[in-house]
Amino acid sequence: MNIAVDAMGGDHAPGVIIQGALWAYSELGVNVTLVGDEDRIWKELAKEGKTGNGVQIHHCSQMVAMDESPLKVLRQKKDASIMVAFDLVKKGKAEAVVSAGNSGATVGAAVLTLGRIKGVERPALAGIFPGVKGNVVLIDVGANVDTRPNQLFEFGIMGDIFTRSLLNIDNPKVGILNIGEEGSKGNEQVRIAHDLFKKGPFNFVGNVEGRDIFSGDVQVIVSDGFVGNVALKLSEGMADAISIMFEREISRRFISKLGFWLSRRAFETFRRKLDYAEYGGALLLGVKGVGIICHGSSSSKAIKNAIRIAIDFVNNHVQERLEEGLAKFQSKGI
Amino acid sequence: MNIAVDAMGGDHAPGVIIQGALWAYSELGVNVTLVGDEDRIWKELAKEGKTGNGVQIHHCSQMVAMDESPLKVLRQKKDASIMVAFDLVKKGKAEAVVSAGNSGATVGAAVLTLGRIKGVERPALAGIFPGVKGNVVLIDVGANVDTRPNQLFEFGIMGDIFTRSLLNIDNPKVGILNIGEEGSKGNEQVRIAHDLFKKGPFNFVGNVEGRDIFSGDVQVIVSDGFVGNVALKLSEGMADAISIMFEREISRRFISKLGFWLSRRAFETFRRKLDYAEYGGALLLGVKGVGIICHGSSSSKAIKNAIRIAIDFVNNHVQERLEEGLAKFQSKGI
Repeated sequence: MNIAVDAMGGDHAPGVIIQGALWAYSELGVNVTLVGDEDRIWKELAKEGKTGNGVQIHHCSQMVAMDESPLKVLRQKKDASIMVAFDLVKKGKAEAVVSAGNSGATVGAAVLTLGRIKGVERPALAGIFPGVKGNVVLIDVGANVDTRPNQLFEFGIMGDIFTRSLLNIDNPKVGILNIGEEGSKGNEQVRIAHDLFKKGPFNFVGNVEGRDIFSGDVQVIVSDGFVGNVALKLSEGMADAISIMFEREISRRFISKLGFWLSRRAFETFRRKLDYAEYGGALLLGVKGVGIICHGSSSSKAIKNAIRIAIDFVNNHVQERLEEGLAKFQSKGI
Repeated sequence: MNIAVDAMGGDHAPGVIIQGALWAYSELGVNVTLVGDEDRIWKELAKEGKTGNGVQIHHCSQMVAMDESPLKVLRQKKDASIMVAFDLVKKGKAEAVVSAGNSGATVGAAVLTLGRIKGVERPALAGIFPGVKGNVVLIDVGANVDTRPNQLFEFGIMGDIFTRSLLNIDNPKVGILNIGEEGSKGNEQVRIAHDLFKKGPFNFVGNVEGRDIFSGDVQVIVSDGFVGNVALKLSEGMADAISIMFEREISRRFISKLGFWLSRRAFETFRRKLDYAEYGGALLLGVKGVGIICHGSSSSKAIKNAIRIAIDFVNNHVQERLEEGLAKFQSKGI
């Protein structure tokens, strides 16, 4: 297996990205193609004292800034690292793309280069959250805004298949993210979606609320990408804020510091649960290929873990199962 | 000062609500009128061994269930406790209403009974979040869905005035909750709002993201009530989940338990920060009177603290300052 890594995308690119790719190569035994500026990549590899051998370089002349307009990138930067990376997947030279770059451009490049799965109007990003009773998949965490009810319905189908195939959860409960449990609650978008979902080929349990993202009572939560992205970033921000506020309290008294030191192992295990680097990134569902979109400020560990998720995605045939599931549903209709 | 408390509203009403009201009376020295079924209230008071003396009862014949349609309540239940409570404010017999009941019905009853402040199309709920660098006000946390850009703009004006007057923050930074910093990001609603906000009579700093709700870099964050409500409930759910997951880790090893015991004081201080009961409830801004809406599952402490916030609201003349600010702005226009 070979994973195309966008070496130029991310706040700490290319250094940290390349470190993550090397880590994945040595720990996971996967081949990696670093896509980006050859000279800069060679320099980074030299720093790490590594060259060649399972880590290949695919040169390209352009890169995408974090705040660049995705539309502009797609039109004008055909040789940008993210475009070239997806092109490697299209040509069968790589099985998946991992990028910590401009997420709008990454989604756009995937859709443009690979094309959408039949039956999918809008590919969506699935994020994995650590719920009390187990993992929760939130879809969409930011690929789309102003999502229409039938598109939310597609997210439901994809989220269900994804959760079964990647997380091995049998018959996951699917809910719509809303501000109350009754079907009459919420904005127009989710009220109409609620009626559609009742006819869905999945275990729809009705509306759920913000708190369910961390309860784990429901395994798939469907949401517009605007709301989902706010939820994703809020939980990252809250995890950071909690760490800071907690350390502040602990450091006030010697006895607290001692206590903290004694229980530090439990802390570390616990912190890892809340660390998005453990989950690597969000998974793009609905395109003909595999794309993992990492946080812009990803560490090398996040990149390594994203590559691990990409491998799982490929090995579990999530892509094929999404295509099968959507085709089956298409032939039946709602 | 006299606070009208909806004794019949909330998952644990009337018992816990009455306990909270009694607590407020004894700790804060405020008069409280319990609105609800006289017999049931007397019974609860008898249990607590308290009668009369600063805690008065105002009987009414109806109550509102948590899942009842707000519209139906407003039309058919004129003698519901929440309607009667706001009527006491309208008649000058109470300064504020505190309710843990059906929040849709509470907002509706406030608007119908008290009327809106001139210049306000949609009253909104302000929630206070404990940011790393200080409190953050998120407005709206659930009074409205499908908010129009000009209504978001009103939320900005109200949020600014509220934050200055209740939290004593001078010239607070105001941001729009979005999924990226650039003005071109997000859904149609926030893109149009971004242009309006530039002309606002407040310190607009542009778009902010989910993580800023807990950073405290910006003090006022404006959002549609759907997104705001998901954010509010997500953070409550995450705080609970973190406590549970943390305790689970701690209990695995004796040394961790010991460490936890030594640092328990720091934990308690820290937990209180994340406990919504400390903040009492969300504040309804934009109606001609004071209304505090508490979580349905509020404890007596949450009710007591909500009454304290109501007192602060009245003493700091937030209501008058909102009216003045909106009138001033109205006369100028955008």
